[in-house]
Amino acid sequence: MEIPVELQQVFDWIDAHREEAIVDLQRLVQQPSISAQKIGQKECADLVVELMHNDGLEAKAYPLQDGPPCVIGAQPSKQSKKTMLAYAHYDVQPPEPLDAWVYPPFSATIADGKIWGRGATDNKSGVMAFIKAAKAWMKVSGDVPVGLKFITEGEEEIGSIHLGPFIEANPELVRADAMHCLDGGLNASELTPDIDLGLKSVLYVELIARGAKSDVHSLNAPLVPQPAWELVRALNTLVDENRHILIDGWYEDLWQLGEEEIGQLEANASRIDFSKMKADLGVEEFALGRDGIDALKARAYEPTCNICGMTAGYQGPGSKTIVPNEARVKIDFRLIPMLDPEKAARKLRKHLDDHGFGHIELHIEGNIPEPPYKISVKEDISQAVIKAAMLVYGKPPVVNGVSAEGVILKHVWMPTVLTGFATPDCNLHAPNENIGLDSYIQGIKYAAAIMWEYGQMEKA
Amino acid sequence: MEIPVELQQVFDWIDAHREEAIVDLQRLVQQPSISAQKIGQKECADLVVELMHNDGLEAKAYPLQDGPPCVIGAQPSKQSKKTMLAYAHYDVQPPEPLDAWVYPPFSATIADGKIWGRGATDNKSGVMAFIKAAKAWMKVSGDVPVGLKFITEGEEEIGSIHLGPFIEANPELVRADAMHCLDGGLNASELTPDIDLGLKSVLYVELIARGAKSDVHSLNAPLVPQPAWELVRALNTLVDENRHILIDGWYEDLWQLGEEEIGQLEANASRIDFSKMKADLGVEEFALGRDGIDALKARAYEPTCNICGMTAGYQGPGSKTIVPNEARVKIDFRLIPMLDPEKAARKLRKHLDDHGFGHIELHIEGNIPEPPYKISVKEDISQAVIKAAMLVYGKPPVVNGVSAEGVILKHVWMPTVLTGFATPDCNLHAPNENIGLDSYIQGIKYAAAIMWEYGQMEKA
Repeated sequence: MEIPVELQQVFDWIDAHREEAIVDLQRLVQQPSISAQKIGQKECADLVVELMHNDGLEAKAYPLQDGPPCVIGAQPSKQSKKTMLAYAHYDVQPPEPLDAWVYPPFSATIADGKIWGRGATDNKSGVMAFIKAAKAWMKVSGDVPVGLKFITEGEEEIGSIHLGPFIEANPELVRADAMHCLDGGLNASELTPDIDLGLKSVLYVELIARGAKSDVHSLNAPLVPQPAWELVRALNTLVDENRHILIDGWYEDLWQLGEEEIGQLEANASRIDFSKMKADLGVEEFALGRDGIDALKARAYEPTCNICGMTAGYQGPGSKTIVPNEARVKIDFRLIPMLDPEKAARKLRKHLDDHGFGHIELHIEGNIPEPPYKISVKEDISQAVIKAAMLVYGKPPVVNGVSAEGVILKHVWMPTVLTGFATPDCNLHAPNENIGLDSYIQGIKYAAAIMWEYGQMEKA
Repeated sequence: MEIPVELQQVFDWIDAHREEAIVDLQRLVQQPSISAQKIGQKECADLVVELMHNDGLEAKAYPLQDGPPCVIGAQPSKQSKKTMLAYAHYDVQPPEPLDAWVYPPFSATIADGKIWGRGATDNKSGVMAFIKAAKAWMKVSGDVPVGLKFITEGEEEIGSIHLGPFIEANPELVRADAMHCLDGGLNASELTPDIDLGLKSVLYVELIARGAKSDVHSLNAPLVPQPAWELVRALNTLVDENRHILIDGWYEDLWQLGEEEIGQLEANASRIDFSKMKADLGVEEFALGRDGIDALKARAYEPTCNICGMTAGYQGPGSKTIVPNEARVKIDFRLIPMLDPEKAARKLRKHLDDHGFGHIELHIEGNIPEPPYKISVKEDISQAVIKAAMLVYGKPPVVNGVSAEGVILKHVWMPTVLTGFATPDCNLHAPNENIGLDSYIQGIKYAAAIMWEYGQMEKA
């Protein structure tokens, strides 16, 4: 696919300024910003502002109530009336276990053609890709091909828990025609970007059954409550053996797959190495006899009720004869578009009450999550990202209907695409996180190409 | 109740030789003998033999295959053709946590009128009570009122795992007309002995469901096995909400309560402080609306299937989104006479297979346990122990149909009674175990009285 002249000039500029982009990413990685531990967040937000100013972009750190600042910036376009919001996050996962790192996690050491450090991929390279791509456009053409807004937040790794109220109070700061986010990565089979046109929502709950004041010797079992059994009985009412969720009305509002989604599944099924996928998951066969397109469809579009963890009583070696006085289960419900998390939580509570388990406590972990969403591949932003991926990576991206994880700004809904340039060996959330220098430079070009293609849509 | 002259003379001798009995018990407590940690068992067995020889009783330590020695002794009677076996154990629970002890656990320190140390009650005072009672009879009358055999083993605290084959090969060493055991205690409400005329059997199993090779990110939940759900479904088939066990044929051979058992329950119900019992168990009300005699009946005679512990996946704070690759549950089935543990284990396996859970592993903790048993209150040994308790404690003992815990020698079945003189504050299995000096001396008298009364039965 031929690269347009204007974009090629930008790519050349990016190549010529490779060192500058690497040095700035190193600076950003060297600034710890661990949201779970409240370490260095304000300093990192200030650094993002400084780096944006250095590169000629307007930016400001906005304090959030009870949370670290989020950085919001803008670069208007002379040639386009459209605006695209670029979402990224500057916070990182905790670096522990520290002794598993070859290079110190905040050293941003360059070795073997990579930058090694916590956040090198997730998501500080994403932050920098937007900045450097915008700068390249300004330097080469004196303008950006589409109006840009930037939001870089500091609590993505802990569920963006303080961002919502700020956005709700200041929607104009981020309002745009579409949003994209470079917090995804390349498909593991094909090394071409995964493009996600939707997002599931995860309703994560803990159910707790309680009994006597403390554990009781089990010779008294006939006389005391048995919360472990209560929990087993309650759980058993939630799903059947085919994993169908038995909660009344759970599937109301469920997205019905059309030709578009089936087409995407078929395209992906023809490209995916299912044997490798099974091996990666550690199974001989998929569950319930699924395979091929059925497996992809279930993985993308099936609402799930999964037990993440379960605990009660004695779990050590040998035997201990007690009636545990408490039993807990952690469940993640993945909600497919357009299942609403708030409604889902209410249906779950009602189900428990209706089935005689009113005494079982229901705790929602964190807040009620953002609802799931889904956009069409026909949206301008979808097409722009797909075309940009083909230009930069030389082959079609893997287009997914809905993905498991990502971000959404509920209070200023706009068509949103999640993509990225992280390679499968980047050690996401693990020790020795890294970004290949070449992958990073390619990511900047990908961001620049998305800006270009989205601008072209308007003209078409 | 008037104490017969012969017995009073023995009681007087026991009082006169109080110091000797205390010093010998201190020696025995000072010798560590921790079966779970294989510490000091042989040395302790040798000490038991030495103490018995010192007191004029025949005794020998017999090595067990793969286990510590058991001490077996005898004292024939000139006046009686009957023989009573006295069972005790010299091994103790681990003393940990060590820093919770006021006095070192093997110091046998005397303070506040008690001997403090691991094993002071459980069961070294029981060992000594038999020895000193027999010695008292020999010293006072030159004979014992009934033939005596003694067995003192070294693995009671870990399920007597090596005793069976030895007894099977040498039944004549322990064969007797009845057995009793001073490893029980005084009723907490009344401070008169609990007398147990039967024993439940505890079949302790672990069920394990396995899935993928390792935990899997829960976005893949539709594609991988969900062992936690499998386990929940399997468990749900085992009991109903009224705690009725749904395993085919589980209640075959269940002891049917007769007038005798109902009479015992009524007698006990009239003596028990149910409010205190509820407070001790940490409940406002008993389960399933039970109360009074119904509660006692359920506690004694209801076969149970109790979840002691359950574990799967993530159990820490907050959320982790995984499909755990393993789920486990520990269950204790209490088997009422005459439910057979071996048959029960087979029925459980068959139940799982028949309900589509053939892939769930069934592990029996330790060995298949001894079967439950029950004897009538009309047995000579029952009557002897009851009369002895009245003589020594001055009021009727609490007679229980079956008790939760105790010992039985399957290969030489004989009518067996479990009783004891431990006080509720003796810190059984806990730090700061102790035996009151007066309680201990009273226990020796109880043993002497049981010998006398059992001998009298023959003459009656």
